Amino acid sequence: MKAVVLLSGGLDSAVALYLAKSKGFDEVHAISFDYGQRHETELNHAKAIAEKAGVAAHKIVTLNLGDFGGSSLTDKNIEVEDGDVNRTDIPVTYVPARNMVFLSIAASYAESIEAQDIFIGVSQVDYSGYVDCRQEFIDAMEAAINKGTVMGAESGKPIKINAPFVNKTKAEEIQLGMELGVDFGLTWSCYRGGEKPCGTCDSCLLRAKAFAEAGFEDPAL
Amino acid sequence: MKAVVLLSGGLDSAVALYLAKSKGFDEVHAISFDYGQRHETELNHAKAIAEKAGVAAHKIVTLNLGDFGGSSLTDKNIEVEDGDVNRTDIPVTYVPARNMVFLSIAASYAESIEAQDIFIGVSQVDYSGYVDCRQEFIDAMEAAINKGTVMGAESGKPIKINAPFVNKTKAEEIQLGMELGVDFGLTWSCYRGGEKPCGTCDSCLLRAKAFAEAGFEDPAL
Repeated sequence: MKAVVLLSGGLDSAVALYLAKSKGFDEVHAISFDYGQRHETELNHAKAIAEKAGVAAHKIVTLNLGDFGGSSLTDKNIEVEDGDVNRTDIPVTYVPARNMVFLSIAASYAESIEAQDIFIGVSQVDYSGYVDCRQEFIDAMEAAINKGTVMGAESGKPIKINAPFVNKTKAEEIQLGMELGVDFGLTWSCYRGGEKPCGTCDSCLLRAKAFAEAGFEDPAL
Repeated sequence: MKAVVLLSGGLDSAVALYLAKSKGFDEVHAISFDYGQRHETELNHAKAIAEKAGVAAHKIVTLNLGDFGGSSLTDKNIEVEDGDVNRTDIPVTYVPARNMVFLSIAASYAESIEAQDIFIGVSQVDYSGYVDCRQEFIDAMEAAINKGTVMGAESGKPIKINAPFVNKTKAEEIQLGMELGVDFGLTWSCYRGGEKPCGTCDSCLLRAKAFAEAGFEDPAL
């Protein structure tokens, strides 16, 4: 059974990949994006995770969303600010419509290989204030995919977006990942993309908090 | 007033661009895609059209959908078949989820410049059997965009997808384009992408039929 898994190199998508495998998807096609992100190093982590998990294929799609500007993750003229896990506004690391773009391309890939399942590791619980991590967005996107593909609109083989962590905390994801044998030492979360995680950006703070809550040491540190 | 216009180099999107300008969008941002299409020459036509129309900006996004295969437009191992304007099945030129990918990226661009309008020149009347040219897809995609962007989901500035030709014939588009001053000599429709239009692919046949119905000579021939 085929599945397309969005793999960023971070921990959420690594757990999503192992979860897909545990659910009987024995032909996993991983897809990653080189979208002009400052933390390009995550792509090397994605490759290592995909290889260790034994995926059927791993596509890296190059796409320069950075040309549009507007986010500190892609625009090197904007600083990545230090994190604040209690923030409620939209942070400067937001990349406009990123998950929509990624899911659309994943849908194109899924249709080209006739996979009916896409996995994405978003969570609306422990997220950085991103609107495109919410269940209502996932539902709307799945509806659009099934109107805009032959599989969904003509062939009676609808495509499902599996977002298994949408209502889970990152700590719960880590606990699940530990059970599934995810090698978290291969994952990368830092937005700044230096040689080592900075420890102070939003993403590093969320990761540290989650490992503490889950009761594990972070093997990447 | 800002608009993002999807510009392929073909005639539909050229008319959509001029229509946007005539509707008071005085800051038009054109966006084109280098997606591994066989008929790359259309990008040069897109540039010429954008320049002549005096757009504020023209972004060309490179994205290798061709890596996925599955379409004769991107996979050079599959022949572009001769056209049949009465066909009812899905032709081999179908690129999986193409308009969804393009609209997602256009939404990312729109959000980065705070434009609330996207124009796309699709038609469900004279189309090559593509599911992603239908009104119900456009509606579903607009809903997804407004769940997956800050503008739509948080800021009360929803993004609208304008598909003004969705119920128009290509002949009607040509008549409108003639009124608006579109230089159809700059547009390119042929799927095969040789030096001159082949005259026998689906797209060339639809174009010839439309010019005949509209009562104009095709200035590109």
